[in-house]
Amino acid sequence: MNILLKNILDACVGAIGFYLFGYAFAYGRKPGTDANGFIGNWNFALSYTTEQSFAADGNFAGAGWQQFFFQWSFCAAATTIVSGAVAERCTFGAYVAYAFFLSSFVYPVVVHWVWASDGWLSAFNTSDGGYAKILKTGAIDFAGSGVVHMTGGIAALCGAAIIGPRVGRFESNGAVNEMKGHSAVLVVMGTFLLWFGWFGFNPGSNLVIGSRVAAEIVSRVAVCTALGGGAGGFTMLVWKWLRTRAWDVVAVCNGILAGLVAVTAGCAVIEPWAAIIAGAVGALVFCGADYLTLHVAKVDDPVSAFPLHGVVGAWGVLLPGLLAKGDYVEQAYGSYGFGSTVDEGHRYGILYGGHAQVLLSQFIEVLVITAWVGALVGVFFFIVHKAGMLRVSTEEELAGLDVINYASIKNGKQYKGDSSNHSGS
Amino acid sequence: MNILLKNILDACVGAIGFYLFGYAFAYGRKPGTDANGFIGNWNFALSYTTEQSFAADGNFAGAGWQQFFFQWSFCAAATTIVSGAVAERCTFGAYVAYAFFLSSFVYPVVVHWVWASDGWLSAFNTSDGGYAKILKTGAIDFAGSGVVHMTGGIAALCGAAIIGPRVGRFESNGAVNEMKGHSAVLVVMGTFLLWFGWFGFNPGSNLVIGSRVAAEIVSRVAVCTALGGGAGGFTMLVWKWLRTRAWDVVAVCNGILAGLVAVTAGCAVIEPWAAIIAGAVGALVFCGADYLTLHVAKVDDPVSAFPLHGVVGAWGVLLPGLLAKGDYVEQAYGSYGFGSTVDEGHRYGILYGGHAQVLLSQFIEVLVITAWVGALVGVFFFIVHKAGMLRVSTEEELAGLDVINYASIKNGKQYKGDSSNHSGS
Amino acid sequence: MNILLKNILDACVGAIGFYLFGYAFAYGRKPGTDANGFIGNWNFALSYTTEQSFAADGNFAGAGWQQFFFQWSFCAAATTIVSGAVAERCTFGAYVAYAFFLSSFVYPVVVHWVWASDGWLSAFNTSDGGYAKILKTGAIDFAGSGVVHMTGGIAALCGAAIIGPRVGRFESNGAVNEMKGHSAVLVVMGTFLLWFGWFGFNPGSNLVIGSRVAAEIVSRVAVCTALGGGAGGFTMLVWKWLRTRAWDVVAVCNGILAGLVAVTAGCAVIEPWAAIIAGAVGALVFCGADYLTLHVAKVDDPVSAFPLHGVVGAWGVLLPGLLAKGDYVEQAYGSYGFGSTVDEGHRYGILYGGHAQVLLSQFIEVLVITAWVGALVGVFFFIVHKAGMLRVSTEEELAGLDVINYASIKNGKQYKGDSSNHSGS
Repeated sequence: MNILLKNILDACVGAIGFYLFGYAFAYGRKPGTDANGFIGNWNFALSYTTEQSFAADGNFAGAGWQQFFFQWSFCAAATTIVSGAVAERCTFGAYVAYAFFLSSFVYPVVVHWVWASDGWLSAFNTSDGGYAKILKTGAIDFAGSGVVHMTGGIAALCGAAIIGPRVGRFESNGAVNEMKGHSAVLVVMGTFLLWFGWFGFNPGSNLVIGSRVAAEIVSRVAVCTALGGGAGGFTMLVWKWLRTRAWDVVAVCNGILAGLVAVTAGCAVIEPWAAIIAGAVGALVFCGADYLTLHVAKVDDPVSAFPLHGVVGAWGVLLPGLLAKGDYVEQAYGSYGFGSTVDEGHRYGILYGGHAQVLLSQFIEVLVITAWVGALVGVFFFIVHKAGMLRVSTEEELAGLDVINYASIKNGKQYKGDSSNHSGS
Repeated sequence: MNILLKNILDACVGAIGFYLFGYAFAYGRKPGTDANGFIGNWNFALSYTTEQSFAADGNFAGAGWQQFFFQWSFCAAATTIVSGAVAERCTFGAYVAYAFFLSSFVYPVVVHWVWASDGWLSAFNTSDGGYAKILKTGAIDFAGSGVVHMTGGIAALCGAAIIGPRVGRFESNGAVNEMKGHSAVLVVMGTFLLWFGWFGFNPGSNLVIGSRVAAEIVSRVAVCTALGGGAGGFTMLVWKWLRTRAWDVVAVCNGILAGLVAVTAGCAVIEPWAAIIAGAVGALVFCGADYLTLHVAKVDDPVSAFPLHGVVGAWGVLLPGLLAKGDYVEQAYGSYGFGSTVDEGHRYGILYGGHAQVLLSQFIEVLVITAWVGALVGVFFFIVHKAGMLRVSTEEELAGLDVINYASIKNGKQYKGDSSNHSGS
Repeated sequence: MNILLKNILDACVGAIGFYLFGYAFAYGRKPGTDANGFIGNWNFALSYTTEQSFAADGNFAGAGWQQFFFQWSFCAAATTIVSGAVAERCTFGAYVAYAFFLSSFVYPVVVHWVWASDGWLSAFNTSDGGYAKILKTGAIDFAGSGVVHMTGGIAALCGAAIIGPRVGRFESNGAVNEMKGHSAVLVVMGTFLLWFGWFGFNPGSNLVIGSRVAAEIVSRVAVCTALGGGAGGFTMLVWKWLRTRAWDVVAVCNGILAGLVAVTAGCAVIEPWAAIIAGAVGALVFCGADYLTLHVAKVDDPVSAFPLHGVVGAWGVLLPGLLAKGDYVEQAYGSYGFGSTVDEGHRYGILYGGHAQVLLSQFIEVLVITAWVGALVGVFFFIVHKAGMLRVSTEEELAGLDVINYASIKNGKQYKGDSSNHSGS
């Protein structure tokens, strides 16, 4: 319940924040002004799109409406990743403020860097004599392993670490108490929906990248997305079976999601077998990161948002540096910052014998997203925490946020909520 | 369970009714005959479409199949609105009869009036020297705030009022007893699905309006739909918090739906900020209407179908009269009943300085839909009520319809149903 | 839980199996070699598609990616049908092995026969002087009543029969004990999702059939799919009411699904009223087959997978032989194996006065799918059964597979699962 309300709220708040400020910070560039590699500065509240919408040619405006809508869905995806990480103990006021902050400023700036044609790290930025500014490649992040997932995952880590663990999660000596999980039926259904949804996000990303709506790229992306998720799920099944001799349905779902996150950045430039490798490794990366987060760092992230989106997202960003196929890079990005020299410059994965510049670009993306999101969202949550407005009281938490906070005015009674979502004590 | 079965049943019954009669009443016009502004009269059971389907050019027929399918989905949406309003106390026979009646006659006539090129209120009717018949504008109802939602909402009011409140809903002195609500988890999931579904209905509506598949209109519609729903949800969250200091997840969902209903008529002709206003006002209109329905009119509408679809739908219909932007009206409707004189005739919202004729057209739509649906469905439910076939017996109701009525033959046992859907006693 | 995990697993395993082998068996034909009517033999692991993907023209490759993805979704649909039939008593290892076997070999061979341009039974095979090889028509199976549903349904029968009934399903004298069913809420929601999903499968099938993306065919398919499902649901409602005077929501859902299965093969070549007949008859066929399976054959198929997909699927395959309309056949298939002589050769349903060759082709499809799938999957399950690896122990089954087998490592506790999915004892 807690998470569900937050999910639906951040879609509402994010729509307004992204409309008022975010889209302008991400893509706006006032005609006649110099490009700004750091941040966009124009078309707030779609003011320009609205004006131009009825222009005779309508090219700019049409793209404007469509791109806004598509970008908003990505923004909502990034924002909502945090909701599970702070589950059961974050106040609503703090969460609403966070959602507005991320969707109107933190996330759009990352988008500007990596996806806008002005961005300093963008493969679409051809200002350096036809090449991308950074290492003559720019970062390859087709559908947002870094832009979307790492942004959400790092923010989730900040939130979960600063708000502190749920009551009873750790013993005084640091031992981890197990807590009751979520309804497995809901987890499986949610995973199915997400998997299908991913076929909207990943293949759809091609629409954003200029006007090259190449059916072939879209189809290849769909195939890689399917294989990545499948490999992640299957790997996790086997891995858990080897370790515990039990079939773990929730783990399989997490494995599928890890596989999907892992192929999100590279799905346009890798071969199908590489997608299988990416997904399988992604699932194992998730296992390791999840263990480290909980048992070593002692951070209580109830839905494993940081390991899943943050760490596996970083693996996904690095992937094209290892396994991007030259022909595919040329097909998907050749007309942008890579110039016509994808092959000459060996601008593809080092495992194909490519130059390290692609891998280095990807590594830079991992670093800057970690630093930018970690700093801003960390400071934000820290201030809210110090102001005493981040966390509900222990009494409320123990009683279960659902019982205390959710009155249904309409029915005049408090919901008892779904017991499977309560924190055990 | 009760509602779910009715939802799935009216999709079945409505498909057959709309196929046999409804589509012909809505859009049929026999070649060579005069236009009939009141009702269509041709192509029953798709007889003409079927014949022409293999014609060499295939233009009519192709459009015919596609339009039928799309219109059927709108018809099913309108029909199903009633299912919640008569929940837990309506017999299945009466509900099946209602679903057939609405989908084969009542709803198609409204469609004919407002959306068919022959309809007397339609903006697509250019029979008056190139202008629409009514006030030279016709009513602007892009995706059916009036045609779909008001039709369903008014029918829901008739049903709920005539069938009477659930046992125990009101004290003998008229005081309102609170009754246990629905599972909040299901409400939230349903809202998410509906929100996504709306992106099918609203943008898809452009396909129906002639052959102008303008990507720009579709994109603007999608943006306005997102912002309308977000603003409705956020407004409701704040409003409930101010009044009760509690976060009410079901109310947020209703607010989102109210925002969506509110922008449905105008989504093609308003600016994004107007969509935010429409959604926010829609949420507040819903609160007021909900209070009046239950506490003043003493009508027991368990899912607030009338306030949500009927009253907010009326607000949505009026909206283009206030806030339709001239340029957008010309873009979306200029080639139809508005002639080329959208600007000259000031045929846009009065808040932009437009002439009142648009607002007046919208007001006429509200009145005639209310009168037509209220009269026919009211008489229908009244007759069934007097015949004693509308309501289950008190014993059955108290025991819960689910327990009494739903035997699962296959498993040979009666379902105990989902306890969260039972009426408390 | 059991079924859900299997559903998500077979999507994972099937993706890999179909990628490695299945797609090559189904459609691969090495350039320069003779056609093989029995099985494809090329492009394993998409090796050729991958190579050619960046070719200048890209025609083959683009189609390759897209077709693979689409075909994979059909393969996953066929594979998953079995999961319910062996519910609550099959080991995971056996199920994973089955899913790999079906998706990498058994199913692709059927696809090759009926859908590939080389297949011996395919209407797309024009090697016989411009005609299809079999009876100059080939089998009409537009979206897979036979290829997908019968394959899955026959496999389900093999699995359910060989694994044996659940403990307590039958008395020692053979009387049938009723067992607690599934959550009706989940059944209804699943049916809704499937119904919508079908609009992806059936209309989408036109994309596979060569490059004739005729909007008219797609639209007609959508209309027939809607009416078939509606008629099936409504027929079942009336039938159950007449027999038991109770409204049976699960039966209505099964009726809808039966209607959908019944129109899947013929949806491109029948008229809307024929879709209604097909759906209504399909629902009754399902009732009969369900009774015979359980009470006469004494096979415990907990979700009625065989009656629904196997028997109603066979009815669906036969349908075009009875009710295919000549003009529609020419429109959808005329340029393939039917030559230009659809009308001259009376190659349409015998109820339109057509020649029996179409019906005979359909009948051949029913026979060969039954024989092929029954033999291979039957032998497979029999071997696994004899090896003692097919069924969980009685103790585990009684305790409920969900409790024994699904440990959630992450949370360190065993799930208690959803009680509504447990087998009663």
